[in-house]
Amino acid sequence: MSLYYIDMISVIEAKKLIEENCEPSRIILTPLLEACGSILAESIFSPIDTPPFDQSAMDGFAFSFDGWNGKNELFVTEEIQAGSFSNNTLKPGHAVRIFTGAPVPKGADSVVMQEKVVINGQYISIDDQMLSKGANVRLSGSQTKKGAIVLEAGVLITPAAVSLIAGIGIADVNVFAKPKINIIVTGNELVKPGHPISEGQIYESNSYGLMAALSQLGIIPDSVVMVGDEEDETIDKIMSQLKCDILILTGGVSMGNYDFVTSALDKCGVTKVFHKVKQKPGKPLFFGKKGSTLVFGLPGNPAAVMTCFYEYIVPVISRFTRKKYYKSLQLTLAQSYGKKPGLTHFLKGKTNESYVTILPGQESYLMNSFAVADCVVELEEEKEHFNAGESVVAKMIVR
Amino acid sequence: MSLYYIDMISVIEAKKLIEENCEPSRIILTPLLEACGSILAESIFSPIDTPPFDQSAMDGFAFSFDGWNGKNELFVTEEIQAGSFSNNTLKPGHAVRIFTGAPVPKGADSVVMQEKVVINGQYISIDDQMLSKGANVRLSGSQTKKGAIVLEAGVLITPAAVSLIAGIGIADVNVFAKPKINIIVTGNELVKPGHPISEGQIYESNSYGLMAALSQLGIIPDSVVMVGDEEDETIDKIMSQLKCDILILTGGVSMGNYDFVTSALDKCGVTKVFHKVKQKPGKPLFFGKKGSTLVFGLPGNPAAVMTCFYEYIVPVISRFTRKKYYKSLQLTLAQSYGKKPGLTHFLKGKTNESYVTILPGQESYLMNSFAVADCVVELEEEKEHFNAGESVVAKMIVR
Repeated sequence: MSLYYIDMISVIEAKKLIEENCEPSRIILTPLLEACGSILAESIFSPIDTPPFDQSAMDGFAFSFDGWNGKNELFVTEEIQAGSFSNNTLKPGHAVRIFTGAPVPKGADSVVMQEKVVINGQYISIDDQMLSKGANVRLSGSQTKKGAIVLEAGVLITPAAVSLIAGIGIADVNVFAKPKINIIVTGNELVKPGHPISEGQIYESNSYGLMAALSQLGIIPDSVVMVGDEEDETIDKIMSQLKCDILILTGGVSMGNYDFVTSALDKCGVTKVFHKVKQKPGKPLFFGKKGSTLVFGLPGNPAAVMTCFYEYIVPVISRFTRKKYYKSLQLTLAQSYGKKPGLTHFLKGKTNESYVTILPGQESYLMNSFAVADCVVELEEEKEHFNAGESVVAKMIVR
Repeated sequence: MSLYYIDMISVIEAKKLIEENCEPSRIILTPLLEACGSILAESIFSPIDTPPFDQSAMDGFAFSFDGWNGKNELFVTEEIQAGSFSNNTLKPGHAVRIFTGAPVPKGADSVVMQEKVVINGQYISIDDQMLSKGANVRLSGSQTKKGAIVLEAGVLITPAAVSLIAGIGIADVNVFAKPKINIIVTGNELVKPGHPISEGQIYESNSYGLMAALSQLGIIPDSVVMVGDEEDETIDKIMSQLKCDILILTGGVSMGNYDFVTSALDKCGVTKVFHKVKQKPGKPLFFGKKGSTLVFGLPGNPAAVMTCFYEYIVPVISRFTRKKYYKSLQLTLAQSYGKKPGLTHFLKGKTNESYVTILPGQESYLMNSFAVADCVVELEEEKEHFNAGESVVAKMIVR
């Protein structure tokens, strides 16, 4: 092992330390439509029978099967539309005109399709040899009985699940809460896109990359602020942004004279869990905690920011939401690849069926390859040579 | 072929007719963060060199390599922080203290890391045998030259692409526009979830299922309205909602006395393209067009609504956005399955590696299985028997 990396921990240790410092998931009552895509935290029991009444499955005529000898005409007493109902009890030998979704009245138990009926004024005669008792009637509670379990805790709330839950009249559901996230972007040189830059300035892209990546997980940060490379201002901003589950900072975590993030975090009472990881990109990664707030200090280079987000922050979000966002695949390496030992490399990759190609331009300040990558390939710390055809881990990042 | 289905068209014909009636995609200038997940409609060319200036990649000292003989001490004239700059031209034998991201001043071409320097008052001596000319300097334009193509039209805008685009200062991008969608839910019997129901009423779930499914594609309908089974009211609502790309109606498309949707659409000037498809669920599906507005009349049963959404409306949305939302897989059927000939069956399925199981409860009014399904299995129109181990098409619906 290279002595150069002696004050750093390995990727595995870093991930274990983060895992150990995660807080338990919270449960939050959420309006049904917003809950789509979340994990259900408590099982749902039906508050009603569904259908809530014996319901006609057809446009036709409802009658008492036992009051019909297979030949006799039935006297039509009234009409029941969907959404209305009749308080009358139907007599044997009588029928009601009924429509799909309408409640079958007391005294009736079967519905004949309108296509199988001949109408003679107020009377109908039925021409349906196959008709059986109970035909075309969806019995009350036949889909779900009141009190029965409809969805079990732990399932993903799909659009169809939303439809099912709405159908039993429930407007809010308990799901595992998304974490509250704040972002602080540091750097004197940063200017927002859409504005002109002066000598020495560059465009601020890290908050954009992070917000876009969070939006794909259905998360909007509570606040995103910028701060210059000035310690007092950094301390102020950190103090004002610490009230969240995950505070993400970018830049200022190296050891330069103007890297105030780690010292400012210390002065704000954030306890360091680790600083510097044996990885490329993202060596200067800082992780700490204050109360229940997890604090990630990411380096300033954009590729390091995105890599650390996918590798370290997404798993923490998953701990909150209980949701797995990205697949990890074992794929065949399309080319041979060499690296120095000592650091885990996270490389921008592009998959093609069962193959993965490592893209050119892996430096932490370059985003051209990352922009078109669909996965991050992890190459282990000590290994130097990877042969074409070897199996590697590709973590998909496309949603 | 059963005579019963003689007035219906096949699924393939229906999809072809929809395809033929689709309008061309539109291009829309969109704020960068909102564009994440969309398809880029026009290639992006860099308006600037990146880095925009020769940039130090390290905290250290910048100097002229040719003005250093490998031994001589260098006189440190000033300090340049990231975000600031110097107008002075550095003389040979001089150096500036410089930090990561700061502009290398005129006259300097190389940066030595601070760890490889001994400081003697105003002077430094360099102890770095490996140092070469140009070391630790990211040359202006080395990532992207002004005017060079950064991303090609047709690529998916990933979070990393957002970071890349922000980094060249662009705040808005041209993407293929999502369609504007309106929804009209019909039915006298419908009550919103969260409210009590009376005799004969049921909960309205279709707008919830549709809105949830649309939200997974990043689309919020412009308007969602309810209307009773009354023709004049239905006509009014349709007229007020026709200004969109896709108008979706649910319910009222069968041939009952209170099914006013098709007649109301006709009176509103919507030209019928087809009505009724040889499929289960969703037989009464209506498709028409007025001007450039595509109109889908879906049946009222919730499983039919969701099936028709995934089968017919998602492909239209894809035509607008140029994005493929769901994968179609060839999977092995886990059980044998029988059906009558004449209708294509769309069945709720659950995949497990390379197998797919057809779930119980396939009726169009039941949502319990759909809620936990991850795919729709398509079984072809005329075929009756499907054996365990046979290969079938499973269309994934989980995002």
